[in-house]
Amino acid sequence: MNQLQQLADRIISRVNVNLDEFGFDTEPFVTHALDHEKMLKFYAFYGITSHHPIYFHFKNSNIAGSYFLGKCYVGRSAIYKSDIRGDELKRKGDKIRSTKEIPLVEDEMITIRDSLLYKTLVHSNSHNPESPEEFGIRNTISSHYANIHGSTLEGCFLGPFATVDLMNLHSCIVGDFSYIQVGELFHRKIEPGTIWIRNQHFEFKFKYDTTALDYFVGVNDAFQPRGIMYDFVKNREADYERLFEVMNLEPVEAPFTSAVNRYAVIQGDTHIGENVLVAQRAFLENAEMGEGSNAQENTYIINSRLADMCITAHGGKIIHADVGQGCFVGFNAFLNGKETARIQLGEGCIIMPHTIMDPEEPIHIAGDHLIWGLIRTQADVKTHAISLDDLAEVRDSLTIGKMTFNGKGSVFIETFKNRLQNILLLNGALYNNGEKRGHAQDDQNISFNIIQPYRTGELEGLYPSIRIKP
Amino acid sequence: MNQLQQLADRIISRVNVNLDEFGFDTEPFVTHALDHEKMLKFYAFYGITSHHPIYFHFKNSNIAGSYFLGKCYVGRSAIYKSDIRGDELKRKGDKIRSTKEIPLVEDEMITIRDSLLYKTLVHSNSHNPESPEEFGIRNTISSHYANIHGSTLEGCFLGPFATVDLMNLHSCIVGDFSYIQVGELFHRKIEPGTIWIRNQHFEFKFKYDTTALDYFVGVNDAFQPRGIMYDFVKNREADYERLFEVMNLEPVEAPFTSAVNRYAVIQGDTHIGENVLVAQRAFLENAEMGEGSNAQENTYIINSRLADMCITAHGGKIIHADVGQGCFVGFNAFLNGKETARIQLGEGCIIMPHTIMDPEEPIHIAGDHLIWGLIRTQADVKTHAISLDDLAEVRDSLTIGKMTFNGKGSVFIETFKNRLQNILLLNGALYNNGEKRGHAQDDQNISFNIIQPYRTGELEGLYPSIRIKP
Repeated sequence: MNQLQQLADRIISRVNVNLDEFGFDTEPFVTHALDHEKMLKFYAFYGITSHHPIYFHFKNSNIAGSYFLGKCYVGRSAIYKSDIRGDELKRKGDKIRSTKEIPLVEDEMITIRDSLLYKTLVHSNSHNPESPEEFGIRNTISSHYANIHGSTLEGCFLGPFATVDLMNLHSCIVGDFSYIQVGELFHRKIEPGTIWIRNQHFEFKFKYDTTALDYFVGVNDAFQPRGIMYDFVKNREADYERLFEVMNLEPVEAPFTSAVNRYAVIQGDTHIGENVLVAQRAFLENAEMGEGSNAQENTYIINSRLADMCITAHGGKIIHADVGQGCFVGFNAFLNGKETARIQLGEGCIIMPHTIMDPEEPIHIAGDHLIWGLIRTQADVKTHAISLDDLAEVRDSLTIGKMTFNGKGSVFIETFKNRLQNILLLNGALYNNGEKRGHAQDDQNISFNIIQPYRTGELEGLYPSIRIKP
Repeated sequence: MNQLQQLADRIISRVNVNLDEFGFDTEPFVTHALDHEKMLKFYAFYGITSHHPIYFHFKNSNIAGSYFLGKCYVGRSAIYKSDIRGDELKRKGDKIRSTKEIPLVEDEMITIRDSLLYKTLVHSNSHNPESPEEFGIRNTISSHYANIHGSTLEGCFLGPFATVDLMNLHSCIVGDFSYIQVGELFHRKIEPGTIWIRNQHFEFKFKYDTTALDYFVGVNDAFQPRGIMYDFVKNREADYERLFEVMNLEPVEAPFTSAVNRYAVIQGDTHIGENVLVAQRAFLENAEMGEGSNAQENTYIINSRLADMCITAHGGKIIHADVGQGCFVGFNAFLNGKETARIQLGEGCIIMPHTIMDPEEPIHIAGDHLIWGLIRTQADVKTHAISLDDLAEVRDSLTIGKMTFNGKGSVFIETFKNRLQNILLLNGALYNNGEKRGHAQDDQNISFNIIQPYRTGELEGLYPSIRIKP
């Protein structure tokens, strides 16, 4: 048996042992996902800058088509067309908030072992105070367009378009298109389409109607995605090809305070403002990016205008929309406006992660609203939105449609807004005269090491061990 | 001072100390050669195959535009647009011929320390029995299109187009366009245009008239090359650009027993026969490559036909020529035929390294001749060639024109022919039904890791440390 097959088998058996209690078998997913021909075809790339600590080490792995930045270790894993973006890792001496303030004894590093990540984004820093120097992913499989955001994982399976945010998971299954941010989870199975945020102060919960969701995103028996959201991204895959074919692209016109990653697609009549970050694998077509706005990994901004200081979180899709100043469009949100059914968001709106808007008519959402769930008509807005002012009044609990909220609304809003402010700061949106540098300034001038596999022989498809240090 | 400048200064001082006795100052060469902008611009590449031991390690270096294959270590050096091709390194257990048969305790590795190699080719294995596991280059500067072939160097300077072959040099200066293969040399200065082969059995010596040579290749005060040979290569530099711009080139049509390196230029009506090797940075235009023939690094074959089993050694240039079966065209030979002054070589000719033919009229050389020096007319052939039959008769010494030979001609021919046979074998020219594999078979399917420098900051222009292992 060749080494690539051995690698796949090892991952299957490791993850299966962890998920045995659910009778869950990862074999169909792995067998279907790992196309050995494609794993030979695509190169991986590691970003070199003077602004990020450099350490990259991997062995016994295939990392076809993947992007790495910052400090990373990969062992006995398959990381296929994934983004492992370590530019927000904590650094030596940084203190983590916990019961005590613990300083890091060395730079944090992303470590991925015995895992399969498929078109997955790994980003930010670990929010697991038990391992502040290690953002660890182990014995885990994550599938198409999953987001592993500041979350350590052990023995888990993430379905397509699933997001785990600022968490710590052990032996869990997270269904497709679920977003969870609930601290720590052990031995849990999260049903598809669950949106769940919980901490000691509040809890937000919404679950999609399975039949309704299925039209947008669902999976077959091998956990391969289908639905119009998946079709949407799949139909645009070919537009990325040129980025990988050409070594030196003509740079996109942008202010010198902004970063447009060379692995982003920029098409049509697109304008980039000051302090803008356009991350790798972002897709902009006829897009206007206001000052300080960003388009993170796997985002699509098409025929749309973003005013200043807007955040498009990983996987967010904004089509035929006008987005007011200071809006947040969460992870994997799918704002699928049409030419005849445009979406208008007022200033300061918060589109919750994994929100779907698929309008049949023009939709207008007033400023300073929180939006969730599935919206197709203007009437749907009533049961899927609340003004931040009204939410701030909530002291105990609130139910609107299928959404339930428990806790103090004002604390929820404050926590959310603080996080958004921090995202803007980290992304360089607030850069001014050399102060408050962020990704938009530090992620310019990245040069990429390109890493290739053995093409023949016993090790065909595996990559040789590589270690890059300063 | 930035780190790149510190690197240059360290190399200058190290080499100057070694060449102090000659009053030789390398500063003008280094300062002129190291264009920091260009050292930022070009990436380096390391070849991955299943047929060669893999080990690549470097640190504190710039390796802009360089090609690496096999086992290599580079430290505190600038390797600019050079080819470090380690596919003929000895391997663990191989025995080297010396007074005793010594087996290697580990694979041989090319190690380059505190050196500047500029568009230099390093190839083959070290013929220094004192360090069989290390092909070492240290405190050394080599300039444009120098060939370091199986030669260890310490404290040396090689001028443009100089070749050191199967040697071991300490504190030597080798002038431009000199070819030497004389075993071991200490503290010697070799004048430009010296062709010198010597071992315990024979000696071959020829020296170009400096004024005549100057038209073809010479240097200025900073040891930068000039002359029509340099112009010839410089005028074709732009043709290589596309190779570096595009990631996946459409493959050149060639039999599956042949290797055409993806960093070779193939133009016009070019045909590749069976068992042919076309190495990186070879340049073929309207070229016909007969079965088992090869075009090694930095060779140019233009409007020419090579019959079967021809060898074009590193840097050989064949223009408007018909080359008979089994011919050898040595290192940096410049066969500059014209449309109206074509060069015809009969079968089995040996064009000595660094031979120049620049005909004003058609030139015909009968089969089985040895050719050297500068030939412009048919009449010149008389004083720059000898039939191998006549040479085989020489028992003691021979002088023809400015060439002197001492020793037994038959031993010289036998030694040469054995070496040519070995070159054909190593290059895969004799491959048949899975037997006698060589570079033409093993150097297919190379995938390349692409290695880039820091683009900004204190380390601007340096490459991060990298180590690649199986």
